[in-house]
Amino acid sequence: MYNRIYNFSAGPSMLPVPVLEQARDEMMNYQGSGMSVMEMSHRSKVYDAIIKEAEADLREVMNIPDNYKVMFLQGGASMQFANVAMNLMKTGKADYVVTGQFSGKAYKEGQKFGDAHCAATTKEENFTRIPEQEELNLRADADYVHICYNNTIFGTKWKYVPETGNVPLVADMSSCILSEPVDVTKFGLIYAGAQKNVAPAGLTIVIAREDLLREDLPEFVPTMCNYATMAANDSMYNTPPCYPIYVCGLVLKWIKSIGGLEAMKEINAKKAQMLYDTLDNSKLFSNPVKHCCRSMMNVTFRAEDEEINAKFVKEATAAGFANLKGHRSVGGMRASIYNAMPTEGVAALCEFIKKFEAENA
Amino acid sequence: MYNRIYNFSAGPSMLPVPVLEQARDEMMNYQGSGMSVMEMSHRSKVYDAIIKEAEADLREVMNIPDNYKVMFLQGGASMQFANVAMNLMKTGKADYVVTGQFSGKAYKEGQKFGDAHCAATTKEENFTRIPEQEELNLRADADYVHICYNNTIFGTKWKYVPETGNVPLVADMSSCILSEPVDVTKFGLIYAGAQKNVAPAGLTIVIAREDLLREDLPEFVPTMCNYATMAANDSMYNTPPCYPIYVCGLVLKWIKSIGGLEAMKEINAKKAQMLYDTLDNSKLFSNPVKHCCRSMMNVTFRAEDEEINAKFVKEATAAGFANLKGHRSVGGMRASIYNAMPTEGVAALCEFIKKFEAENA
Repeated sequence: MYNRIYNFSAGPSMLPVPVLEQARDEMMNYQGSGMSVMEMSHRSKVYDAIIKEAEADLREVMNIPDNYKVMFLQGGASMQFANVAMNLMKTGKADYVVTGQFSGKAYKEGQKFGDAHCAATTKEENFTRIPEQEELNLRADADYVHICYNNTIFGTKWKYVPETGNVPLVADMSSCILSEPVDVTKFGLIYAGAQKNVAPAGLTIVIAREDLLREDLPEFVPTMCNYATMAANDSMYNTPPCYPIYVCGLVLKWIKSIGGLEAMKEINAKKAQMLYDTLDNSKLFSNPVKHCCRSMMNVTFRAEDEEINAKFVKEATAAGFANLKGHRSVGGMRASIYNAMPTEGVAALCEFIKKFEAENA
Repeated sequence: MYNRIYNFSAGPSMLPVPVLEQARDEMMNYQGSGMSVMEMSHRSKVYDAIIKEAEADLREVMNIPDNYKVMFLQGGASMQFANVAMNLMKTGKADYVVTGQFSGKAYKEGQKFGDAHCAATTKEENFTRIPEQEELNLRADADYVHICYNNTIFGTKWKYVPETGNVPLVADMSSCILSEPVDVTKFGLIYAGAQKNVAPAGLTIVIAREDLLREDLPEFVPTMCNYATMAANDSMYNTPPCYPIYVCGLVLKWIKSIGGLEAMKEINAKKAQMLYDTLDNSKLFSNPVKHCCRSMMNVTFRAEDEEINAKFVKEATAAGFANLKGHRSVGGMRASIYNAMPTEGVAALCEFIKKFEAENA
């Protein structure tokens, strides 16, 4: 009805239609307040209810225990690469598992602030899998272990939560948060840029175990990068990204309406299975990722012939399947099928793949 | 027609109705792209046109010379308090003029990174005026001089650009950017949180003279805080706050449609004059700011009797004048009359003030 297309962008990416409709309908006058959410003082009662409800719904949907702080911050995951190191490196030692570009960037940023150590990497295998527990070279006296839970570019996903003993586990969940239930208690800190599964770009969610936060950071740490300060001010040390937080709240209501993260996972698993089955049955295209480590959110695939890949992207775009071109560092194709991608969108893509293959056999 | 109210919030604050209408109308499908702006890959052609046009319009409207970089960042002015110090303190010396709460915070943040010196302050006078040039105790070898061009809380404004010789002038223009023409060449760096005159919260504009930016910052500076890196990547080092940038673009089109910043200033000056005249003619209310330094954007006023102030805020709110309560550190009332506040809104407030005074004489 809106002539919308299937948008397989890795992020920012699709939002649920009912969420966009509500944002549209409330644009000129939010629930009788006489103003748009974009125009509200962040310290007003009407906005306070919005941010409080978003946090409460996030806590409910993700089952976040009371001893975890929830923060609505800015700067994206890339800002958290530094913030995590500045806030959590108490003795100056941290272990990083490098499973792709973003975990590599996090590792590099960590090195600016202390003894950041690569505990394992699958770089030699083009990041086509996640290391197994016994491959992790962890230090018992590290301040934290950092992982990227789902690798957007390479289409891999941790299918187990690594055992790190008493060392807190920090996870970048930018591209898989809210896609399935997660046991938050297994993590010391979770962060996620919102622009894939949660909200428009400009919001970063940080969920941190209280005891890991401390005000007394080194002098050079900007006040805005101090998690304890942000948490103590309920994300209102300064003006938060109010509108993305509002949309985040709408997305959480939508997730609740379809049955929470268990239901979300079921839908996502079905979508991913459909696409992987199509690729596994294809003679033209293949997915390079080890089966054990396939992402439910980002599905990469390619033909051996680069011309075929280019042709596929071009024809798919013309047919209304947008943003299927793989990341520039990988090539080929990538279909990001986040929460808001409808099952019909994936089904239509599978049909298109089969049709293309038949025509280009 | 939308039952909107007059919202005098200090920020986030009103946006022009035509801007909100366009955002609403394009919510489900931006100009035939098949998606919302919130859903677009920041690296897509359709979004690239949006951010490029926003930058071009900002350059045109503010008459920004080619040797200045424009950056669309995150974190608000508070993040820039640190970023300015981390990026521009080359020798480790900077002068700050403290004229209110935010310039005080900037000064304090600057002290974390070097020899930040208070060049002048009007704190003893409750920040009711801006220091004059001859009061500024500037050091010729400072890396920069920092001022807050308009003080949101205290309702004061620099009516002259201080002479700083060869030392670059840095200005926080969060609450006055786009309200009137500014000679950008007189500044080394201008920054502004967008949530008052530009866009919804979550976007920070930085305009910096190219020669002041440098990649080789101290190791402890987060990559995301390096202006040179952000500028070299055209604000796309990571995902920028895409939607606020889009709204910023719409606001700039609106400003152009009414005749640019000269026309904007004329309207703003008229609104402010109307309100100041009303207050100057009042026996009940007064504005504490020295006439020389009155802000065109934030007008503070109060009765001597605190009960009257509370009554005024309550009755004004009931009459559809929202967010008139003064900042908690100042008390009384404050009417923020940014670009998007229509002249009729200020006229109606003036009438309400007169009526209230007649009833409470």
